[in-house]
Amino acid sequence: MDFKNLLNRIYAEIKSSKWEDGNLPDYIPELKHINPDKFGMSLITLDGKNYGVGDFQEKFSLQSIAKVFAFTLVYKDLGGKVFERVGVEPSGNPFNSLIQLEQERGFPRNPLINAGALVVCDMIIENFDTPEKTLFDFIRKIARNSSIDYNSSVYQSEKNAGHRNRAMIHLMKSFGTIKNDTDKVLDLYFKLCSLEMNTEELSQTFLLYANEGKIYGSDERILTKSQTKRTNAIMQTCGFYDEAGEFTFRVGLPGKSGVGGGIAAVHPGKYAVATWSPLLNKKGNSVAGMKALELLTTKSGWSVF
Amino acid sequence: MDFKNLLNRIYAEIKSSKWEDGNLPDYIPELKHINPDKFGMSLITLDGKNYGVGDFQEKFSLQSIAKVFAFTLVYKDLGGKVFERVGVEPSGNPFNSLIQLEQERGFPRNPLINAGALVVCDMIIENFDTPEKTLFDFIRKIARNSSIDYNSSVYQSEKNAGHRNRAMIHLMKSFGTIKNDTDKVLDLYFKLCSLEMNTEELSQTFLLYANEGKIYGSDERILTKSQTKRTNAIMQTCGFYDEAGEFTFRVGLPGKSGVGGGIAAVHPGKYAVATWSPLLNKKGNSVAGMKALELLTTKSGWSVF
Amino acid sequence: MDFKNLLNRIYAEIKSSKWEDGNLPDYIPELKHINPDKFGMSLITLDGKNYGVGDFQEKFSLQSIAKVFAFTLVYKDLGGKVFERVGVEPSGNPFNSLIQLEQERGFPRNPLINAGALVVCDMIIENFDTPEKTLFDFIRKIARNSSIDYNSSVYQSEKNAGHRNRAMIHLMKSFGTIKNDTDKVLDLYFKLCSLEMNTEELSQTFLLYANEGKIYGSDERILTKSQTKRTNAIMQTCGFYDEAGEFTFRVGLPGKSGVGGGIAAVHPGKYAVATWSPLLNKKGNSVAGMKALELLTTKSGWSVF
Amino acid sequence: MDFKNLLNRIYAEIKSSKWEDGNLPDYIPELKHINPDKFGMSLITLDGKNYGVGDFQEKFSLQSIAKVFAFTLVYKDLGGKVFERVGVEPSGNPFNSLIQLEQERGFPRNPLINAGALVVCDMIIENFDTPEKTLFDFIRKIARNSSIDYNSSVYQSEKNAGHRNRAMIHLMKSFGTIKNDTDKVLDLYFKLCSLEMNTEELSQTFLLYANEGKIYGSDERILTKSQTKRTNAIMQTCGFYDEAGEFTFRVGLPGKSGVGGGIAAVHPGKYAVATWSPLLNKKGNSVAGMKALELLTTKSGWSVF
Repeated sequence: MDFKNLLNRIYAEIKSSKWEDGNLPDYIPELKHINPDKFGMSLITLDGKNYGVGDFQEKFSLQSIAKVFAFTLVYKDLGGKVFERVGVEPSGNPFNSLIQLEQERGFPRNPLINAGALVVCDMIIENFDTPEKTLFDFIRKIARNSSIDYNSSVYQSEKNAGHRNRAMIHLMKSFGTIKNDTDKVLDLYFKLCSLEMNTEELSQTFLLYANEGKIYGSDERILTKSQTKRTNAIMQTCGFYDEAGEFTFRVGLPGKSGVGGGIAAVHPGKYAVATWSPLLNKKGNSVAGMKALELLTTKSGWSVF
Repeated sequence: MDFKNLLNRIYAEIKSSKWEDGNLPDYIPELKHINPDKFGMSLITLDGKNYGVGDFQEKFSLQSIAKVFAFTLVYKDLGGKVFERVGVEPSGNPFNSLIQLEQERGFPRNPLINAGALVVCDMIIENFDTPEKTLFDFIRKIARNSSIDYNSSVYQSEKNAGHRNRAMIHLMKSFGTIKNDTDKVLDLYFKLCSLEMNTEELSQTFLLYANEGKIYGSDERILTKSQTKRTNAIMQTCGFYDEAGEFTFRVGLPGKSGVGGGIAAVHPGKYAVATWSPLLNKKGNSVAGMKALELLTTKSGWSVF
Repeated sequence: MDFKNLLNRIYAEIKSSKWEDGNLPDYIPELKHINPDKFGMSLITLDGKNYGVGDFQEKFSLQSIAKVFAFTLVYKDLGGKVFERVGVEPSGNPFNSLIQLEQERGFPRNPLINAGALVVCDMIIENFDTPEKTLFDFIRKIARNSSIDYNSSVYQSEKNAGHRNRAMIHLMKSFGTIKNDTDKVLDLYFKLCSLEMNTEELSQTFLLYANEGKIYGSDERILTKSQTKRTNAIMQTCGFYDEAGEFTFRVGLPGKSGVGGGIAAVHPGKYAVATWSPLLNKKGNSVAGMKALELLTTKSGWSVF
Repeated sequence: MDFKNLLNRIYAEIKSSKWEDGNLPDYIPELKHINPDKFGMSLITLDGKNYGVGDFQEKFSLQSIAKVFAFTLVYKDLGGKVFERVGVEPSGNPFNSLIQLEQERGFPRNPLINAGALVVCDMIIENFDTPEKTLFDFIRKIARNSSIDYNSSVYQSEKNAGHRNRAMIHLMKSFGTIKNDTDKVLDLYFKLCSLEMNTEELSQTFLLYANEGKIYGSDERILTKSQTKRTNAIMQTCGFYDEAGEFTFRVGLPGKSGVGGGIAAVHPGKYAVATWSPLLNKKGNSVAGMKALELLTTKSGWSVF
């Protein structure tokens, strides 16, 4: 597959399109100042090729994409026991809805919606003496990049504005599904969401999920082959809020999006890919990113299906 | 892959297990009389191998599995226009719930839940002069088997008992999302659900979805390659009622289940597989069938992820 | 209280106001042709005074108001056992919603919403040999008017258009809370809703509820004093769809509205009152009728509170 | 009416009954230690008679009953403008549910459910320089009792345990329907709920609502006659969580209950009554209290209906 040519064609098509129906997210003040015209895309193959177009070396806020890394840490640490506290089903609801969470007595549908990621952060605090250091060291390790960090002004902005997440964690606390102090859990959660990478770093990190659970480059095993498949399965059904079906339908790869405008996806055994473009559709997913990935799998004729 | 040996080991493991927590469906009287100990499994590869264990030549009621065939007919006929009337998102709700359908003004989440399949039947009636003949001839054609038919006593039983489906179609009619006479649509729908096959016939028919949209054996194209991938994507996220995530997580293949105890799934480019075992879990999926398919992908190490 | 003067002032105020925000109901075709400017109001006191203004002698479609009479018949007949099949709580939801009905497994919140009235009709069919005759003879008796009847073209119009009610009754049938054939129950229900009276006849009939359960004029007891209070209590909390609080707040009398534009209310021990004006607010209650009744209790300083 | 005799008969009947199906509330630790056998009842008439039976001079925690006083303060202060921020409709849902609140974008159905009372506290903080002092001075004034206060250990207990209320206020904050700092609002709310009275003091305070809005004894006007009627109307439809219909049906008086086991009610123009008995039914209302009030209106033959 000539990915270099493919990415160039995708880039040209994206840049020549109008994305008038997208919006910047309004509930995290710090993310409102981003230039909406940005577009970057990176693809790294398991046989060592690395492609990038547009703003692929500009950092952006990972937001919900980072939930995959926190989940990976607890899945590695606890194995299947992690599913005593979060499910593996798509929610069918907006990412910040409390309705289902109340109906299902504080048990989150999956680890990639806000409620589930809060429970994952709660488990990290429960199981590690220095939770923040453990989490960020883990992410730096699988990214093979010691400079990865969260953005403190985004973190502060989320902390001040995050009333919906506070509502969610107190609702879970009332059901007993959060064990630790809510402020501690929220603090770790907001730092996690404020993680920054560029698309090159992000696709590099996601190679883990294309590579049967081993860090690409070092071959150190993080997840078993079966755990990796299952993590990809969760991304496939739960990675795009209430648009997981649409992404699966149009793109056909397991992946995860964030309201910072990023999307990361993998073709197991083949490659990892990441896109970034800030304007979001109504479901909170990057308009240009979804289009770019649809073009990628359609033009290449490759998807998991 | 030595599928012969693999199926034998799966069969032995299934037969030596107790499935005490499963139940026969109680809302279709005719399905209550099935021997709960039945278990059959068939797997047919694209390179022409055909394997079967247990009751793989005994016919059973396809129920919701047949919805895939009706959807395939309208997708072939109308192309992407079909999605003006049904979505591609998992519902996150029980298969017969009316709640979401009312909230979303009669527009079904996807073509594989009851509401969506009713709309698909409505489209078949709208677009073909002899809808019943067209539908069943189409199924016989992709099955390469002119003896395939529905079971009339199951059909009668469903027709008499189907109050939930009647509620659903009248709700959609009130929103204008059903165009034809409700009794006509229900009649076609009940016949479709009463379709019978054994696991060998079912896996033979499902080869279409493993074979990029071509009928296996004749190579006649029914769906384009891209349409086939998208059909598989819909099965992946929507094929198991509110347990689509669980099936994706444990099995990792696109597939579809029915309350008759059947499950069909495909590994694109490799094989189609079908299981039958009547006892259902609380979500309406075959307990032993899900286990058998989990064993298949875990022991083989093959899944789409 | 000088009701004559009061009604004249109310009439003048209503006729000089603009009711631009009201609409005719669109789901019963026959009701779309009504002159939206109509307004009639009647008030009859227990000491024998009878007042009327505007179009008080023009018949209109009672719609949901008639549900009170059907409930009265079964309450008289079965006593407290009626509450084994319907509740006494406000629904807090639109009158034709199926969501709560599914969540509460087909048990209607109260006898004055559609679902509850369908169950009441089911009980009438169960308990009387000639249900339709029994019901309409009963209504004529408490109305002291043998000419009261339903309007057959409205009945036909409802029968053809009533998909939401069909959805509701099949949903209840699937839960086993409807005992008889659904078409029979719907037929009685549509006839009940198509009942016609003018405001004078309606307030005359409602005197029963102001008169401790005795027919005004004949003093024949229909309900016990306690049953009458309880019927009024149900009207107070459940008589105005999801606007029962608003009516209680603004008017302060037990009453019942219908989408034909009518409202009937009583001040126990004092009077019965009825209004008719076809334009409805978003909750399905007559805009001018609610205003007229608010003026009545505000200007008189009399309400049950 | 011989209320002395009536209360004695009610007391005898209550004390000779078993209330096995009631429970103490488990989410406020401090309220779990109450003696479940307590029962007190007081009734004070507008013509100056004062009756009490059982534990009528023992203080208990008013909990939600106190919400009526906070609402009265803002209604007096702001008039109808208060309804720009809370509605007057029954919720039809459990008192601490967040589902409806999310669906209705943070606008509370009425001032007597938790969400509405939090908004009322928010308005008190917004409109008064010394909100806590203003609120408690106001309550002491209408109670004509300067010793009325909240219980600090109940207040502390609620503050530590109130995760559901925290969830609710953060959800409203995310919708912008809470203006002040959430901790400040919660603090005032928890103090309000921790208010203590005995049934004699409570019925004395509730005389305001039987007395057209004037403090009984001083005749100082707090609410207009119309505002008083409307406050009673809100109590009638919204005073008993999702059991408002049941209370209206069985008792037929406007009133308000609290999870401390208290109920206060009024017969406008006649009397105020209060009961206290700690065991609650599943909806959070005192089992013996509801029974005692049902006996009161049934045996006296007096209710507003």
